[in-house]
Amino acid sequence: MSNYEGAFVPGSDIVIAGAAEGPLKGLTLAVKDLFDLAGHVTGCGNPDWARSHTPALRHARAVQLLLDAGAEVVGKTITDEISLGLLGRNQFEGTPLNPKAPDRVPGGSSSGSASAVASGKADIALGTDSGGSVRTPASFTGIYGLRPTLGRIPIEGMMVQSPSFDTVGFFCRHADLLPLLGDLLLDVATRVEGKVESVLVATDAFALGEGPIAASAPLLTTRLDRLGLPWREISLAEGRLATWVESQRLLQMAEFGATFAPWVDRCVPRFSIEVGRSLTMASLLDQNRLPAARAVRAEVKARLDTLLEGRHLICIPTTPILPPPRDDGLADMRRAVDRITEMTSIAGLTGLPQINLPLGEAGGIPFGLSLIGWRGGDEVLLDMARRLEAAA
Amino acid sequence: MSNYEGAFVPGSDIVIAGAAEGPLKGLTLAVKDLFDLAGHVTGCGNPDWARSHTPALRHARAVQLLLDAGAEVVGKTITDEISLGLLGRNQFEGTPLNPKAPDRVPGGSSSGSASAVASGKADIALGTDSGGSVRTPASFTGIYGLRPTLGRIPIEGMMVQSPSFDTVGFFCRHADLLPLLGDLLLDVATRVEGKVESVLVATDAFALGEGPIAASAPLLTTRLDRLGLPWREISLAEGRLATWVESQRLLQMAEFGATFAPWVDRCVPRFSIEVGRSLTMASLLDQNRLPAARAVRAEVKARLDTLLEGRHLICIPTTPILPPPRDDGLADMRRAVDRITEMTSIAGLTGLPQINLPLGEAGGIPFGLSLIGWRGGDEVLLDMARRLEAAA
Repeated sequence: MSNYEGAFVPGSDIVIAGAAEGPLKGLTLAVKDLFDLAGHVTGCGNPDWARSHTPALRHARAVQLLLDAGAEVVGKTITDEISLGLLGRNQFEGTPLNPKAPDRVPGGSSSGSASAVASGKADIALGTDSGGSVRTPASFTGIYGLRPTLGRIPIEGMMVQSPSFDTVGFFCRHADLLPLLGDLLLDVATRVEGKVESVLVATDAFALGEGPIAASAPLLTTRLDRLGLPWREISLAEGRLATWVESQRLLQMAEFGATFAPWVDRCVPRFSIEVGRSLTMASLLDQNRLPAARAVRAEVKARLDTLLEGRHLICIPTTPILPPPRDDGLADMRRAVDRITEMTSIAGLTGLPQINLPLGEAGGIPFGLSLIGWRGGDEVLLDMARRLEAAA
Repeated sequence: MSNYEGAFVPGSDIVIAGAAEGPLKGLTLAVKDLFDLAGHVTGCGNPDWARSHTPALRHARAVQLLLDAGAEVVGKTITDEISLGLLGRNQFEGTPLNPKAPDRVPGGSSSGSASAVASGKADIALGTDSGGSVRTPASFTGIYGLRPTLGRIPIEGMMVQSPSFDTVGFFCRHADLLPLLGDLLLDVATRVEGKVESVLVATDAFALGEGPIAASAPLLTTRLDRLGLPWREISLAEGRLATWVESQRLLQMAEFGATFAPWVDRCVPRFSIEVGRSLTMASLLDQNRLPAARAVRAEVKARLDTLLEGRHLICIPTTPILPPPRDDGLADMRRAVDRITEMTSIAGLTGLPQINLPLGEAGGIPFGLSLIGWRGGDEVLLDMARRLEAAA
């Protein structure tokens, strides 16, 4: 099973027609198995979750919005078990193929959604991103992926993991689709308009990257130059990044621990050892550590709001590492996850929007650069991605 | 799967003829899936263990000894995953039936072996006992079960869990078989003869039992009176039992953590959450706590050797609780395991032999009393069990 190379949940065979007309007519949509599809059990990547839940009564809100716009659902995609993972390895349903790097993981937890889009099995896919679950697989498979501002895409009908982190995100291969998807999915009332005056390249974030990633900022800045957009280098975290990461880890762990504990206690589920370990660590968490972590969260929010000012974007590598091998042992898996969260925790902790731009590759293996926008500035990010693609 | 009520590993269908003649001719033998059977993969109750191991080249030594005596192997029995568990719940292969209490667990980890014998599917079964895995299911299913002196039954071809705790044990329904099984399996060179002068009833151990178990010592002492064997009440642990239990927990955890870590790291297996938790806790264990635990182990050994003196036996309840419901949640499961180890850690920590006598029942649910013997005095225990059965 662990070498299964599909993107869709084994045994599922789901097609749902979209509206007869609409801006997405003719486009196919893959849906992470964390979103309800009416009449089907939302399995969340774990056989005991599936066993202990009943079929959904209605489609998740985000799915319905895209169906209403004419997209056709072509399948449920594999996810890391109950969304706890960043590598895309699922020992029950298989690890989806990373089509551009078949011996590497696709990234997770929205692994199958990214795999489906990257391999052309779907034009669009829905994912979720609490701690990096859209951004990481987008980077690893070389496609666009948006983690929106917290709360701007409706989460109704999506499995809850960590309420103050959970977002609905999406993937596509071509940036010209991004503004349309944003229009369909993003809440208009919380939109914050603005004009990008410059891009801030976070040199401390790039310095954490593996060789080709550390040196990759010019992939973006040359395009900015072509567009006539100013950019400058900054220190994003001023030496505090490790503290930010640890705070995100603690706060998210406290939330998913509280979310899953009643179900885990009742159903005594099976998990791969890493998920079992995460849930065990969450159950052992010293709650006295949370106030300090919340204070750090407030500090990071203030720091980034000051930097962004509703008129700048921040550029970081989406992940500091290339996708690791599919068959790594646990110790290497843990190191990889720790490295990835060095970058993904920034938008996770602050609730800011972030888009992966599939600009990089090293020896044929994709990696992405990211732009982080201001709260509510998702549409600006999507439009900027479109302009940057056109400036290739 | 978790409601499967068989004793044998699903999908296995193994029959191995024994020698044409021998003292066990006509008797059937069930073998815990922790022992090698030539030509078959020893699955150890976990699908990823099975997946990552090749078929055994020869029978485990204990199996071969019983085959040579004429017993016929009639199947591989379900075990708690990699022998880590005392309740007999296996979320992959199913929880074997407790035939005398169908809505209760059978006890583990030698769950299927006890179930097979208790339900008459086999006359004899092999199990393993590191921390209570023969004694617990014997008590819960109402049959005889011996945990021998550490090292007296050969462990070749058995999955290693915790080397300084691991023993090969066995089950049967009728005590008249016990001396023969002992003769076939127990190493003669390490036999320590002796005559039982009296039985020491551990009142502090009985005091920990649930109502009917706390009051159950007369089930044994009335038979002792009939046999004209003196008995007297003692305090076994003199208030130190909680320390003994904690020391066993730490030492066994350190050993099984070291045993399984390389395989877990390489194969990233799936486990039920409790097994994943145990392995996670083992990986987090502070090794600095072990010297104190080893000192306690030496203290307990000295204390019990002094009490037993090669001429006394100690009587305790096998477990302080009745078998819990099959569908308990995690919190209740953990409490049950903690309770069980209050009793099973005594022989586990000391390497002394212990036999479960199926003497008790409460509302139709079986429970056992145990005799602990001196190091090497297994044959005396087996003979005493036979005499006590005859004294009914």
